[in-house]
Amino acid sequence: MRLRNKPWAKDFMGEHPDILIHEDEKTVKDWKEIFGNENPIHVEVGTGKGQFVIGMAKANPDINYIGIEHFDNVIVSALEKAIETDKPSNLRLLRGNGANLEELFETGELDRIYLNFSDPWPKSRHAKRRLTHESFLARYEHVLRKQGEIHFKTDNRKLFEYSLVSISAYGMILQDVSLDLHAEMPEDNIMTEYEEKFSAKGQPIYRLEAMYNN
Amino acid sequence: MRLRNKPWAKDFMGEHPDILIHEDEKTVKDWKEIFGNENPIHVEVGTGKGQFVIGMAKANPDINYIGIEHFDNVIVSALEKAIETDKPSNLRLLRGNGANLEELFETGELDRIYLNFSDPWPKSRHAKRRLTHESFLARYEHVLRKQGEIHFKTDNRKLFEYSLVSISAYGMILQDVSLDLHAEMPEDNIMTEYEEKFSAKGQPIYRLEAMYNN
Ligand SMILES: C[S@@+](CC[C@H](N)C(=O)[O-])C[C@H]1O[C@@H](n2cnc3c(N)ncnc32)[C@H](O)[C@@H]1O
Ligand SMILES: C[S@@+](CC[C@H](N)C(=O)[O-])C[C@H]1O[C@@H](n2cnc3c(N)ncnc32)[C@H](O)[C@@H]1O
Repeated sequence: MRLRNKPWAKDFMGEHPDILIHEDEKTVKDWKEIFGNENPIHVEVGTGKGQFVIGMAKANPDINYIGIEHFDNVIVSALEKAIETDKPSNLRLLRGNGANLEELFETGELDRIYLNFSDPWPKSRHAKRRLTHESFLARYEHVLRKQGEIHFKTDNRKLFEYSLVSISAYGMILQDVSLDLHAEMPEDNIMTEYEEKFSAKGQPIYRLEAMYNN
Repeated sequence: MRLRNKPWAKDFMGEHPDILIHEDEKTVKDWKEIFGNENPIHVEVGTGKGQFVIGMAKANPDINYIGIEHFDNVIVSALEKAIETDKPSNLRLLRGNGANLEELFETGELDRIYLNFSDPWPKSRHAKRRLTHESFLARYEHVLRKQGEIHFKTDNRKLFEYSLVSISAYGMILQDVSLDLHAEMPEDNIMTEYEEKFSAKGQPIYRLEAMYNN
C-alpha cells in the first residue's frame, strides 16, 4: 500500500459518517442498529482500497459487510469507491485495527471474517503480527458465532503454509482449500486489488475456508 | 506405473524371502522378530519401484522401513534395487494392499506412514480409493501409535487440496506444509521416482506432515 500522505484525508473522512466509522468514535456498540436489520455480519480485516468488500456488499444485499483498515491514507480510497457506488446500505468502512476486534464487536456477533492478501510479515520475529497468528485466531473466535468461518486468500506461499499449520494447530477445521484459485475460478469470486495485480503476473492465488470447532 | 507383464516376477520374488514378504504368506505377525530389534517402524504405502524407501533405509539405520506395493510387476523393480544395495537389514518389501494394513500390523505397532505420489483417482466416485480418504486415515490410525504421523508428498494439486481437507476433517493436526518443496529443498529430502520426474518438469511438489490427535 502506498503511504503517500493525504492531508485532506481526515476532513474527507469526517464528511461521511453514514458510511465511515472511526474505531475511537464508535460508542454505539449495536451493529444491528447501525445497519437497521438483523442480517448476518461479515467483516474483512485489512480491507485496503475496498474493492472486495464493496463488490461483496453489492453482490449480497442480505449480508452486512464491514471493511476494517487501519491506515487513513488507504481507507480514503475505499471511501471514494463506496461513494462512487452510491454507498450500499449494507456496507460500512471502519477505520481501526483488527487487533481491537473484541472492543468493536460483541461476543459471537459476526458470522464470517475475510482476510485478503494480508501483510506476510516474513521474519519469524514478526510472526505475531500475521493475521493468522494464534492470537488473532483467538480474537476472531471471540467475536464470531459458534462454528464461525474464516475465508483467506493470498498470493504469498510462505504466509499460506504458515496459516494452514497455525489454523490446524488452533483446532480449526479446513473446509475448502484451493492452491490455484484462478485455475477453476469460482463464479462468485470477487477479486481484490492485490488479487488482480498478482494473478495478472501469473502467480497462483491460494485460498482456504476454515471453521472454528467450538 | 507401467504394467508390462513380467512372467518371471513370481519366481524371482520367491527367491528372496529374506527381504520380500507376500501379504498372504505372512503368518508370523511379529515384525520385531523379522527385524531382530525393537526400532521404530515406518511404512510407505504405494512404494512403486522403491527408490524412496530404500534411500530412507540406508540414511536411517536405526529405523525399520517397510515398503508396501500391490503390483508384482512394480515391486520386482524395488526388489532388484534392494538387491543392488545389498539388502539393508532394516528394510523389507511387502507385496500387498494398503487396504489390509490392519491384518498386517498390530494395533499401534507403527510410528509413521509415508504416502508418496499416491494415485490421484480424480473422479469423485473414486474418492474412496484415494490413500488419504477417511477410510484409509482410520486404518492408519489403527496401526499407528498414539500421535503417530503421516508424511505425504505429491505433485497433484487436486489430490493435495483434497487431502488437506480430508486430514483436517478427520481431526488430525497439520504440523508442516510445503507448497513448493524444491524451492527450499530440505537437506534430508529423499526423492521418489515420481518426484524426480515431475520436479524436472518444473511442477511444484506439495508436502505435508500430519499427526493424529488421539
Ligand atoms: C497487502 S494489503 C491488501 C489489501 C486488500 N485486502 C487487497 O487484497 O487488495 C493489506 C492491508 O491490510 C491493512 N492491515 C494490516 N494489518 C491490519 C490490522 N491489524 N488492522 C487493520 N488493517 C490492517 C494494511 O494497512 C493494508 O492496507
Ligand atoms: C503413482 S505411483 C508412485 C510410486 C512411488 N511412491 C513414487 O513416488 O515414485 C503409486 C504406486 O502406489 C501403488 N499403490 C496404489 N494403491 C496401493 C495400495 N492400496 N496398496 C499398495 N500399493 C498401492 C501403485 O501400484 C503404484 O505403484
